[in-house]
Parts: sequence; C-alpha cells; structure tokens
Amino acid sequence: MKVSMHAMSVDVFAHTLVNLSWILEKAAASAAQRKFDPAVLLGARLAPDMHPLTRQVQIASDIAKNSVARLAAQEPPRVEDTETTIDQLRARLARAIDYLRSIPASALEGSETRDIKVPAGDRTFEFKGLEFLQRWAIPNVFFHAVTAYDILRHNGVELGKGDFLRGGRDP
Amino acid sequence: MKVSMHAMSVDVFAHTLVNLSWILEKAAASAAQRKFDPAVLLGARLAPDMHPLTRQVQIASDIAKNSVARLAAQEPPRVEDTETTIDQLRARLARAIDYLRSIPASALEGSETRDIKVPAGDRTFEFKGLEFLQRWAIPNVFFHAVTAYDILRHNGVELGKGDFLRGGRDP
Repeated sequence: MKVSMHAMSVDVFAHTLVNLSWILEKAAASAAQRKFDPAVLLGARLAPDMHPLTRQVQIASDIAKNSVARLAAQEPPRVEDTETTIDQLRARLARAIDYLRSIPASALEGSETRDIKVPAGDRTFEFKGLEFLQRWAIPNVFFHAVTAYDILRHNGVELGKGDFLRGGRDP
Repeated sequence: MKVSMHAMSVDVFAHTLVNLSWILEKAAASAAQRKFDPAVLLGARLAPDMHPLTRQVQIASDIAKNSVARLAAQEPPRVEDTETTIDQLRARLARAIDYLRSIPASALEGSETRDIKVPAGDRTFEFKGLEFLQRWAIPNVFFHAVTAYDILRHNGVELGKGDFLRGGRDP
C-alpha cells in the first residue's frame, strides 16, 4: 500500500463513482416508493442556472475518466451525452469505472511531473500532473458528485453521508 | 514536486479551505448587496434534516485539521463551535489553514501505513493511513465544502465552479 498518482486518482475516483451509482439506485427506489417519475429527479437542480442531476453525473464521470487518461497520456474513450434514465446513467458510471480500473499503476508512474493542458472555454490551464490532480481533477470530481447527492437530498431522497462515503457498505 | 501523503492532504485541504473562505466572502458581499442579514445564509440548509451552512463550514474545517493531525499522530487543536458570523467562520478557516501549513512533510512520512481509528457514533472505523485519506478524509472534506457552496448557490449567491476550484485566482 503506497501513496501514488494511481492510488490518488484511479482508486479515489472509482470508489466515488461506485458510491454515486449506489446513490442513484437509492434515488430510483425512492421515486418508485413515492410514486413519481424518476425523470423528475434527473431534471432537478439547486438553482435555475446550475446543471440538473443528469449533467452532474455525466460530468463527474467524464472528469474522472478524462483526468486519468490525461495523466496516463492516453486518449479517453468518448461518450455521448444521451442518458434519459437512471439505469442509463448507472451504465455510464459502470463504463467509466471499468475504464479507470483498466489503467495499471505503471501507466501513471511519473505522471506527477507530466505537463497537462486543460482547455476551459477561451482559456487553457496548464499544470504539472500533481497539481492537476490536487487542484483540478479531485476537487472537480467531488464538486459534481457531491452536488448530485445534494440535489437528491434536497428532493427528499433518504440518503446519509455513509451512502456517499461508503455506498452503504462497510468501509 | 512529488506525490506524498503531505501533498495529498495538507496541500489539498489548505487550498480547499482557502477557496471556501473566498466563497464565504462572496456570500457576505451578496447579502450586503441584496440587503438582508447574512445570518440568513448561515442558517440555510438544503433539506430540513441536513446541517446548515455554519455547520458545514465547521465540519469541513475540522475534518481537514483532524485528519491531518491523525495522520501525523498529533493531537489536533480543539475548537469550540461558537461562530455566529461569516467573519468568525472565516477566522476559523484561517486558523485551520495555519494549522495545516504548520505540519511539515516529514511529519506525514510513512503515514500511509499508519493505523487510524475513527470513532463514528457507536462504531469505530479502522483504516491504514492511505485508505483513510482516500476514503474518509478527502471525500469528507469535499462533502461539506461542496455542500456549503451548494447552499449558497441555492440561495442566489453568484458563484461559479471557478470560485470553488480557484477562489477567483488563476490556477
């Protein structure tokens, strides 16, 4: 057990996406139990100019996948944004998790000093790999994953922090 | 620039708390501009059984401080939960940031294999240091910091992801 770029990206992100998928499963069950269309949750947002749940999940999944690909100097698998159901979103998360787990630790060796460029609108952010992980990839994945949780909590889905941290499992 | 327990805890958490303080500064300005008591924001929550903003900030700050202390096998400075203003919350964040930055990289050397016990209600979670950082400390700090952001965004404070990631600064 060693701290490494792999341990702090692939492991952290896969775990987070697994938990996000669990939270979506609870959301689907909550909609069924409360007898409303789960698509209502997919379109829910915390402010009119924030992304709805579907987009939060898509972005969390993409940033995890694309960040690890950048660190590994690989081209990430492209994914179309076509999901309209919770099952489809969970399938997207499953594919991202599979991709993350396909990246061996060796592919990220030395990535802490790799030059990473992130195009963002009309700007390009430039990082070394370590700083990219600390200040871009990790905060960004959690930004969207926690916001997905918050949207569901705000809409009455019974969730607690343990669902987010452990997906209902023991640690 | 080397990936290490220090880089992935002290650096990540200090950066996150700095950005959280910046977000609170924008919240105070927003309340002043919209002419309401900023205490309304401090008591705001996303669901009746979620913590309000004040508590989210206190917990984010405590988990960052206490997690690094645990990894360093130190007793963390104790803090009373007495804040009633945004300025006081920002002072608490500043003290936590000072504490984090007082921990040298050497204090966390080898902490990836340290045994860490986390009392949580009537249970105790046991981790090795690396897993504690991956699955407890990092997700937990972001859980509360992002929820603080989401509470403010939900209450009309003009914020964007750049405020959360960079506190309005260049990366």
